[in-house]
Amino acid sequence: MRVIFNEELKQVADDLDRMAQEVRTAILGAGKALLESDVEAAQNVIDGDLEIDALETSVINQCVQLLAKQGPVATDLRVVVSTLRLASTFERMGDLARHIAEIARRTYPESALTPETREIFAQMQSFLNTATQNLITALSTRDEKLAEQIIIDDDKLDELHHQIFDIVNGANWSGNTQQTIDVVLLGRFYERFGDHAVSTARRLVYIVSGFDPSKEPKSKADAAKDPYLNAE
Amino acid sequence: MRVIFNEELKQVADDLDRMAQEVRTAILGAGKALLESDVEAAQNVIDGDLEIDALETSVINQCVQLLAKQGPVATDLRVVVSTLRLASTFERMGDLARHIAEIARRTYPESALTPETREIFAQMQSFLNTATQNLITALSTRDEKLAEQIIIDDDKLDELHHQIFDIVNGANWSGNTQQTIDVVLLGRFYERFGDHAVSTARRLVYIVSGFDPSKEPKSKADAAKDPYLNAE
Repeated sequence: MRVIFNEELKQVADDLDRMAQEVRTAILGAGKALLESDVEAAQNVIDGDLEIDALETSVINQCVQLLAKQGPVATDLRVVVSTLRLASTFERMGDLARHIAEIARRTYPESALTPETREIFAQMQSFLNTATQNLITALSTRDEKLAEQIIIDDDKLDELHHQIFDIVNGANWSGNTQQTIDVVLLGRFYERFGDHAVSTARRLVYIVSGFDPSKEPKSKADAAKDPYLNAE
Repeated sequence: MRVIFNEELKQVADDLDRMAQEVRTAILGAGKALLESDVEAAQNVIDGDLEIDALETSVINQCVQLLAKQGPVATDLRVVVSTLRLASTFERMGDLARHIAEIARRTYPESALTPETREIFAQMQSFLNTATQNLITALSTRDEKLAEQIIIDDDKLDELHHQIFDIVNGANWSGNTQQTIDVVLLGRFYERFGDHAVSTARRLVYIVSGFDPSKEPKSKADAAKDPYLNAE
């Protein structure tokens, strides 16, 4: 029984890794669509979101199967519940990348960005490219430090997001109303994507700490009180 | 053992009901803050969000305890996993109500709304007042029809949301840049709150259908394949 459980857990972990990779592909594509007015990249992100949604359903189904058939406790339970929640977060990140791509597609062949906001969005994009790469690595190598770095770095994204409001509200703002709308919404989508990356990183730290045998809950009752699984 | 499980399930169901009520209080307060420039109402929503966050943590902890200690299957498992996911959605709804209240507080004593957008936001607010009331009732009475009504009604909110963009982009738009930003973000927060209400209603339909004995999964393997729990 135990071997089967671990095999099935490996399968769902692989699918979760794949989700993270798809999410990274989506945000890279959204950035290309937005910063390079690449409408083909935009369309690929929009089409690809269906696959991320399907992966979420598959991961959740597998988690529920594991819970129903194996009744895991301790670290295994922590991993299954965290996986279930991570899948929902990745699905949301895919939606946000799609929203960015949709704005890029709608404004094509024009850019949704005005000249004075381009550099900030390029920085936000670069930030998310790194964060999603770190997420994928942290997920597969269980590198706690890398996950913690994502959490620490989040302030930079918030700062960039605030700069957008300053520019749009400033005396030199060159955008028309539609550009104001687009830039404000795009800023929000980038910021939310970053927030989800941070919440994912936090959850990873809890999962990873569960693989440290010294932190392993000793009994079912301990597992139920497990602060790593539960803290938010 | 069985009696204890049902008692504990009752406790977590009560806490989930309480979360739904807090979320309704939050959106009512956010609407009062925004539509009546009531800064005290705004502050109450902002302060009250901490309690919603605490309730989420408590509900998730209880669900994990139930999974660890009781290893539920079939309908019980469906209810526990759905409850876990509903708690996260309610937490997000609380955040969105807080975001609305924060904008109302920042613009006070001025309104964040321009005269031509006030009526649309009043309609969105009225829509969410009804939707959250229906959610609470559906949650406590397990009235599938009421939950389905929320899903059907969602188109109206999307339509109102589009009207905001039309007004802001129209020739008669009277707002300055900050008002454009606020109205666009407020529209987004209302629409997202509505989306979450719909996803909650969908999940409720699945839970409720699990209480129909004719749809009850017959075995552990059936439970694992349960489309009501898993479909999204």
